[in-house]
Amino acid sequence: MTLTEVAERAGVSRAAASFALNGRLDQRLSEETMARVRQAADDLGYRANVTARTLRTGRSGTVALVSDFVSSTSFANSMVRGALERLHEADLLLLTVDTQGDAETERRVLDDLLARDIDGILYASMFTRRVTPPASLRDTPLVLMNCEAADPTISSVVPDERAAGAAAARLLLDAGHEDGIWFIGVLAPGRTGGAAWHEWDPLALPRRLEGVREELASAGASLAGTVAVDDDWTVHDGRAAAARLLASGTVPRAIICVNDAVGVGVFQTLQGAGLRVPQDVSLVSFDGSLLAEATDPQLVSLRLPQAEIGRRAADLLLEPDASPRHDLLDMPVGSGGSVAGPHA
Amino acid sequence: MTLTEVAERAGVSRAAASFALNGRLDQRLSEETMARVRQAADDLGYRANVTARTLRTGRSGTVALVSDFVSSTSFANSMVRGALERLHEADLLLLTVDTQGDAETERRVLDDLLARDIDGILYASMFTRRVTPPASLRDTPLVLMNCEAADPTISSVVPDERAAGAAAARLLLDAGHEDGIWFIGVLAPGRTGGAAWHEWDPLALPRRLEGVREELASAGASLAGTVAVDDDWTVHDGRAAAARLLASGTVPRAIICVNDAVGVGVFQTLQGAGLRVPQDVSLVSFDGSLLAEATDPQLVSLRLPQAEIGRRAADLLLEPDASPRHDLLDMPVGSGGSVAGPHA
Repeated sequence: MTLTEVAERAGVSRAAASFALNGRLDQRLSEETMARVRQAADDLGYRANVTARTLRTGRSGTVALVSDFVSSTSFANSMVRGALERLHEADLLLLTVDTQGDAETERRVLDDLLARDIDGILYASMFTRRVTPPASLRDTPLVLMNCEAADPTISSVVPDERAAGAAAARLLLDAGHEDGIWFIGVLAPGRTGGAAWHEWDPLALPRRLEGVREELASAGASLAGTVAVDDDWTVHDGRAAAARLLASGTVPRAIICVNDAVGVGVFQTLQGAGLRVPQDVSLVSFDGSLLAEATDPQLVSLRLPQAEIGRRAADLLLEPDASPRHDLLDMPVGSGGSVAGPHA
Repeated sequence: MTLTEVAERAGVSRAAASFALNGRLDQRLSEETMARVRQAADDLGYRANVTARTLRTGRSGTVALVSDFVSSTSFANSMVRGALERLHEADLLLLTVDTQGDAETERRVLDDLLARDIDGILYASMFTRRVTPPASLRDTPLVLMNCEAADPTISSVVPDERAAGAAAARLLLDAGHEDGIWFIGVLAPGRTGGAAWHEWDPLALPRRLEGVREELASAGASLAGTVAVDDDWTVHDGRAAAARLLASGTVPRAIICVNDAVGVGVFQTLQGAGLRVPQDVSLVSFDGSLLAEATDPQLVSLRLPQAEIGRRAADLLLEPDASPRHDLLDMPVGSGGSVAGPHA
């Protein structure tokens, strides 16, 4: 009998079920919800385990952020910062563990952490994707950061990629662009990733693209086309993709780049071909990373809300709503000078 | 009576003393060293504590990387990767904890970790600086990553910043530069840091500068001057510093930039002023980060050997030499096209 089954029967998140069973009155759960969870536990004969008792006694005071590559690469570290800051406010420590995407390492890491009386787990991914959290996390408060599970009782926080795609298209539409709008950075047919991340399959790509297409369609416009990267979303791959586009004889008016690195590469190729940004070609990208500042003018980029994801995920772990949540966080438009009206 | 005192009396590192007292025959310590440590322990009446016993029994299997900002910012994450990979080979897990530079958080983190039977600590800093590891680490195998302590019994691994400064100067000398060589990125007199890091005082700065000056002097040359950044080592600050240099009427032939972000800012200012890199002005920077790829031509940059630092520090923790080590790791020259001969 697991906490998941109790949560499902009571129609609440696992974290809420855990807090309810442990009588945490500080957790904003209604009396009605607490009673419903207790009833479900009684019906099922559920007994809270040691980890749950640790949670009630507050003995551990420590949360773990378990991810593939978040702390050992430089792409999503602000998620750690956001979670750290929120947990610090609640007087909790945060341990971070990277598994390098290795399932056996993940199993050992989680066994080790659960044996150490961890209060809860933030399960994170460097890039937005679908995950299957291990069964060993069944009875531990759990929130997914920057990833989603098929199991709807597990709360998750991810960026609102579709809305960001729409916002990118809207920026170009508002500047007067109607045609000659390209998207650079799709994956070649049948591919799910490049040399670095073989089974990458980022949710960000189809969602950004869907948002772009829908927003353009709402104004009676459409993409002139998409260009695939050879391998990954790097400066090098962006440069090559833009070179192929120009070599085909196409003169784009505006390019939506799938991330800042690709945007920088596209910028370099345009500049090398004597095309000015934004006078000849407007550029928009996604990420809002330091790389967007490296071009002159700076790339207009939709910022990944990493610190906000970390903070919100920690919030959901600390103060779960009665029901599981699947939060989409806004990707704000950064400042920059890479968008202008279409060239006459 | 502490392990440090035993190590000092025996003239070995604390990690070596710990392993010797625990009879770890897999640790490459000579019989003579082991005997010397045991003698020192007997002389001092030292008894290994629980943590040391855990180490011998191999019960924990977990090492912690404790730092200020390494996992929650995107500047030094490859150190985590390097350590992870080396520890993984030795079948050990790595927990990472950021304290955000807060002493009280650090104290709690270390208490928490030591209570959890951690086998050893990698104590790291995001930027190279001098640290005073807390006394609570006295009896735990400890190696410093990217920082140094006054206590000579504590092993450390840092980049060879002085050699990198010399290499940067050598690149310019070999290209034919003899004068008009500037250094951008010193801190204004009396300042130890900017808005983000108040008491930053990076060891990298004086060491890079010393290496540059010595190498130039060896060829009978010298810096034309240095330019301070307003606040920090950012693209924005680099841009402003270069603008001040040009506004003073100076026409530099070559600029050594303290890091890649400053290099990118300097590049933008030069380009905006109609000066070409490398035809009119050569640029060299330090870090070897993704930002160095964002300019066209790519910045020639001396790469921080972060993954190598992580790997070496883990090595020293796992297989300590008999004596404490203070390793300086080579900063290799990256590829790029920002250096050419002086403009006629």
